[in-house]
Amino acid sequence: MIKVGIVGGTGYTGVELLRLLVQHPQVQVQTVTSRAQAGTPITLMFPNLRGHLDLAFTDPASENFAHCDVVFFATPNGTAMQSARKLLEAGVKVIDLAADFRLKDTEVWEQWYGMTHACPELLDEAVYGLPEWNRAKIAKARLVANPGCYPTAVQLGFLPLLETKLIDPQHLIADAKSGVSGAGRKASVPTLMGEAGESFKAYNVSGHRHWPEICQSLNTYTEKPVGLTFVPHLVPMIRGIEATLYATLLRDATEDIQALFMQRYQDEPFVDVLPPKSHPETRNVRGVNMCQLAVHRPQDGNVVVILSVIDNLVKGAAGQAIQNMNIMCGLPETTGLTGVALLP
Amino acid sequence: MIKVGIVGGTGYTGVELLRLLVQHPQVQVQTVTSRAQAGTPITLMFPNLRGHLDLAFTDPASENFAHCDVVFFATPNGTAMQSARKLLEAGVKVIDLAADFRLKDTEVWEQWYGMTHACPELLDEAVYGLPEWNRAKIAKARLVANPGCYPTAVQLGFLPLLETKLIDPQHLIADAKSGVSGAGRKASVPTLMGEAGESFKAYNVSGHRHWPEICQSLNTYTEKPVGLTFVPHLVPMIRGIEATLYATLLRDATEDIQALFMQRYQDEPFVDVLPPKSHPETRNVRGVNMCQLAVHRPQDGNVVVILSVIDNLVKGAAGQAIQNMNIMCGLPETTGLTGVALLP
Amino acid sequence: MIKVGIVGGTGYTGVELLRLLVQHPQVQVQTVTSRAQAGTPITLMFPNLRGHLDLAFTDPASENFAHCDVVFFATPNGTAMQSARKLLEAGVKVIDLAADFRLKDTEVWEQWYGMTHACPELLDEAVYGLPEWNRAKIAKARLVANPGCYPTAVQLGFLPLLETKLIDPQHLIADAKSGVSGAGRKASVPTLMGEAGESFKAYNVSGHRHWPEICQSLNTYTEKPVGLTFVPHLVPMIRGIEATLYATLLRDATEDIQALFMQRYQDEPFVDVLPPKSHPETRNVRGVNMCQLAVHRPQDGNVVVILSVIDNLVKGAAGQAIQNMNIMCGLPETTGLTGVALLP
Amino acid sequence: MIKVGIVGGTGYTGVELLRLLVQHPQVQVQTVTSRAQAGTPITLMFPNLRGHLDLAFTDPASENFAHCDVVFFATPNGTAMQSARKLLEAGVKVIDLAADFRLKDTEVWEQWYGMTHACPELLDEAVYGLPEWNRAKIAKARLVANPGCYPTAVQLGFLPLLETKLIDPQHLIADAKSGVSGAGRKASVPTLMGEAGESFKAYNVSGHRHWPEICQSLNTYTEKPVGLTFVPHLVPMIRGIEATLYATLLRDATEDIQALFMQRYQDEPFVDVLPPKSHPETRNVRGVNMCQLAVHRPQDGNVVVILSVIDNLVKGAAGQAIQNMNIMCGLPETTGLTGVALLP
Repeated sequence: MIKVGIVGGTGYTGVELLRLLVQHPQVQVQTVTSRAQAGTPITLMFPNLRGHLDLAFTDPASENFAHCDVVFFATPNGTAMQSARKLLEAGVKVIDLAADFRLKDTEVWEQWYGMTHACPELLDEAVYGLPEWNRAKIAKARLVANPGCYPTAVQLGFLPLLETKLIDPQHLIADAKSGVSGAGRKASVPTLMGEAGESFKAYNVSGHRHWPEICQSLNTYTEKPVGLTFVPHLVPMIRGIEATLYATLLRDATEDIQALFMQRYQDEPFVDVLPPKSHPETRNVRGVNMCQLAVHRPQDGNVVVILSVIDNLVKGAAGQAIQNMNIMCGLPETTGLTGVALLP
Repeated sequence: MIKVGIVGGTGYTGVELLRLLVQHPQVQVQTVTSRAQAGTPITLMFPNLRGHLDLAFTDPASENFAHCDVVFFATPNGTAMQSARKLLEAGVKVIDLAADFRLKDTEVWEQWYGMTHACPELLDEAVYGLPEWNRAKIAKARLVANPGCYPTAVQLGFLPLLETKLIDPQHLIADAKSGVSGAGRKASVPTLMGEAGESFKAYNVSGHRHWPEICQSLNTYTEKPVGLTFVPHLVPMIRGIEATLYATLLRDATEDIQALFMQRYQDEPFVDVLPPKSHPETRNVRGVNMCQLAVHRPQDGNVVVILSVIDNLVKGAAGQAIQNMNIMCGLPETTGLTGVALLP
Repeated sequence: MIKVGIVGGTGYTGVELLRLLVQHPQVQVQTVTSRAQAGTPITLMFPNLRGHLDLAFTDPASENFAHCDVVFFATPNGTAMQSARKLLEAGVKVIDLAADFRLKDTEVWEQWYGMTHACPELLDEAVYGLPEWNRAKIAKARLVANPGCYPTAVQLGFLPLLETKLIDPQHLIADAKSGVSGAGRKASVPTLMGEAGESFKAYNVSGHRHWPEICQSLNTYTEKPVGLTFVPHLVPMIRGIEATLYATLLRDATEDIQALFMQRYQDEPFVDVLPPKSHPETRNVRGVNMCQLAVHRPQDGNVVVILSVIDNLVKGAAGQAIQNMNIMCGLPETTGLTGVALLP
Repeated sequence: MIKVGIVGGTGYTGVELLRLLVQHPQVQVQTVTSRAQAGTPITLMFPNLRGHLDLAFTDPASENFAHCDVVFFATPNGTAMQSARKLLEAGVKVIDLAADFRLKDTEVWEQWYGMTHACPELLDEAVYGLPEWNRAKIAKARLVANPGCYPTAVQLGFLPLLETKLIDPQHLIADAKSGVSGAGRKASVPTLMGEAGESFKAYNVSGHRHWPEICQSLNTYTEKPVGLTFVPHLVPMIRGIEATLYATLLRDATEDIQALFMQRYQDEPFVDVLPPKSHPETRNVRGVNMCQLAVHRPQDGNVVVILSVIDNLVKGAAGQAIQNMNIMCGLPETTGLTGVALLP
């Protein structure tokens, strides 16, 4: 059994980690911390866990996690970097679901996240936890930076096209849409139901923190930096991300893009390439660790359109974190992640 | 392994049965019929099942189900009664998720359902499948009438109070609210999102088919017929039923109603009595076979208010049907029903 | 032209007041205050008002409102009572959309609102602004306490039955449901879309501040205090209240309750009694100052069920406040309130 | 007073026309037809119109509309073309809210709409009713083809950029999102709330009927045919369209695109260019005849991103139709269209 600790268990990624971990056959949840809720039974805050978890939140200040094999940080940005080094030194594997270790360039990180990085020396060691691209490194990692939700959906869609140099990397467009749980469970006016319900909008068009993260990854597939326009949108629903990706084909249309995708992902348990002409819906993957992709070429022109859907809290956060844990701990990658999506 | 057939697998109770059954460790789904969709791969209609079920819908006309141990009817009212006898004679256990066998009185049934009953002689044999009340009979049954969704939520709330004669059975009020999946997956104007979204209404105040079903059960707990006012409402959400139940206490307030409920349901795996002052939310039980109850006495008066929530498609339909199957087949009652609700 | 000031214009009742007032032919909005947003153009916060209102929020500390004929308080509870006396002395009419002047009994008010009342001497003078019951007093009032949203829906439904002593006042039940805008536009976890979306729950069953307000009014129609059980619920939608009211008939069923309601409200411009067997939906009144009522007697028994719907922000708040202003200022009562509900 | 008839008044564009027309000071609604609902009072189907409209639906077979000045067709595609000629001959102005007269090329129309056109000779005469581009022709028209909802949002966003040849017309991308009311009020499974709620998807990526309509218009602004990729999406909300438009700038970045848009639309009453860095939300224009636009250049690169929002039922259908009627009848263009959007 893997002994697991969670730092910051009161948000949506926290409760989603708990939902998945209490059903994981090889995991024992030891500790869940929350500064604000120390002492509160977890099921009082999350009654869906009643009968599955008999713990109270504990104060992070009084936890050393030395008894844990793996610690997940489901905290705001800037928290994991404060204690990651100490945990690693104690032999604990660390998976950060926030952004502290996602970017390799300290300067870029500090510019986008508006704070000084507490342990820039760990950025090199940290492994970007997208298993479909980085599996071998994840298996040997002590510290994994779990990808952002948008970056997961966008990268899995562009990956096969960029790896094969089929598209012009200078003109990539990612029009991405997310449910409100992506904004977290903190009190705020813009994600009140009265504000976000029954309405749709783009946001952060001038610049979103996931843009440098996506670019950093896409750049590794190409010789020169990609040109990516990324526009996120807020959808009046709770879970789910859909990314509609546009790229211009460089070569003739004789190549079968559908086949390319099916081949690239044929051994991936958590990427599912749908039949031609499909339109994946976010509900297809609600609650499960899966990315569904569909490939289109409207009017057989030179623009390829990739549709990519994930559950932002699962393949975009907690599920992918557990997938990474499985890989880091030598378990079969799908352990505890074989549920069926809730539809409708 | 229990070999299972499903008649009518294209509706919401059908896909929910499939979602739960493909994860059930003792079940093999053999056959799923659909007149309209015969030949269509099931995953084409329900992409959440991709990777979990490799069957196509078959034509009910060409299926005899003799190879099945259990057949579920997830069909409109009036379908199961056409073939139940034949299946029973072939030694197949039958669980009807529709209403064909819920009422004992043929006349009442025909009045409320507007058709002639095809096999009234089976009404006596059929067992009403509310395990918390009828477990022993279910265990021996060949034919189970799976309760309606509203009746499940309402009965579990009134049961302890009526059994102990604590309340006046002449003045019961059940104000019940359901998500739109309760109306099924057939094309209809009133359940279009443009009609049912962002609005709330009562419906069928003059009479709903679940009223005689609830009354029939409640009557068995009392000496004379209950007086029940039942008002259903449509909530702009997909899954979930909440019933707010009102009754007048007959005896003095010295008795602890909270303790009564906890005692009554202490051994029930699928009824969860929340702590005093709780307000169960339907999302607490989204996707799981659970009824959460809370007990209130506003201003310590003589009115008791019971709050009852279920997922209408699970404890109100497919999950309870599988619970019944487990009991009928001698499996541990919770087999395949131990998932955690999806929150948020 | 009536010169209007609004104190606290950044919440939902504030923006709704503005939406209605900028279309009111006899009103000129002079001043809208907000401590937090002083200096911000109102349309920056509420872009629906672009082209209709060219004002910025001003600091309440630097406003004396002496140039206004009417001042609306769209503030949290406890604000209006701080400055009402001064405004009245300056000859300004005051309409408080919060609860400061709704209860006549200072002690009861202080118990339910958890603060000391700043001007109990005004409670007597303040007129409860339900025009269908109190029109004559409103016409002469300087200070109007605009009713709460639930109380408006509940009182209009019970009023004809209590006035005629048709029902037992000791056993009234009001099962009420509200969209999330009723909780206001302040940052809070429970009304995040991730919390309140796709779920339904009762809340404050033990006691809601609208309970004493409703009781106070209902008591005036009866000889002894009514016995009311009031349970509010949160609906995953933005606007709308539906109240399902239950009462026991005292006299024989020969009286026509439908006719009673139609007669009682025949001259009321903002109460609409629907035909028999109707089920009003909240969307029928979305955005308009209207209460739709329907009358039912299930199974022709002795329980009468009244369905009452309003838009909580209009007839339940801003619209009713303007209706009161019209009455107080001698305008035709419907001035500026004749819009058509937005359906769908 | 303009005497108005409506053919097909039971859908969402029908009821929206009625909502706006009963408030229009220069219009009298004479006749509303519906084959299926002939004889039914309109307010029985649309209770939001109670007190505003005292008509019943009439049978279209028995109506000649000769007493009308203007007839709106709020019918499925293929209906208006059956009777347009006869109405025009009778001197009645015709505004078709469906697609019968939107395309100039009969062959293209027949290919996309899958039927033979009943009066191809009228296609030349019909005027495409986008006032911001075509006002002069509309003023003289007898027959107006009211634009589709997506085309309205997309064209108003691209128009200033194409007119000034600022962008490469060969690489236009329109990623558009619509609420479910765009699919109409007919019974269908995909727009059930159980299907479309709490989920998001692209649809018709291979080809949507609005693509040739948009292309036809955009082509008139450029010398050679544009290259447009258009991907529509379904949003779990009722009203609203948001289009995110991407184009590549041809000239240097010194030109001020914001100023270009403000100048182009400065005299347009129904196009509102928001301040720089704005993110229009669909709710800003809920219920009103307005297009809000915002201009972005992420990272000051050569990609321009235009955000365009409308209410699909108003500026995308009924409101624009009335705007066209006002122009055709010589009324001030804003008559009856000056409401304020319902927010929240």
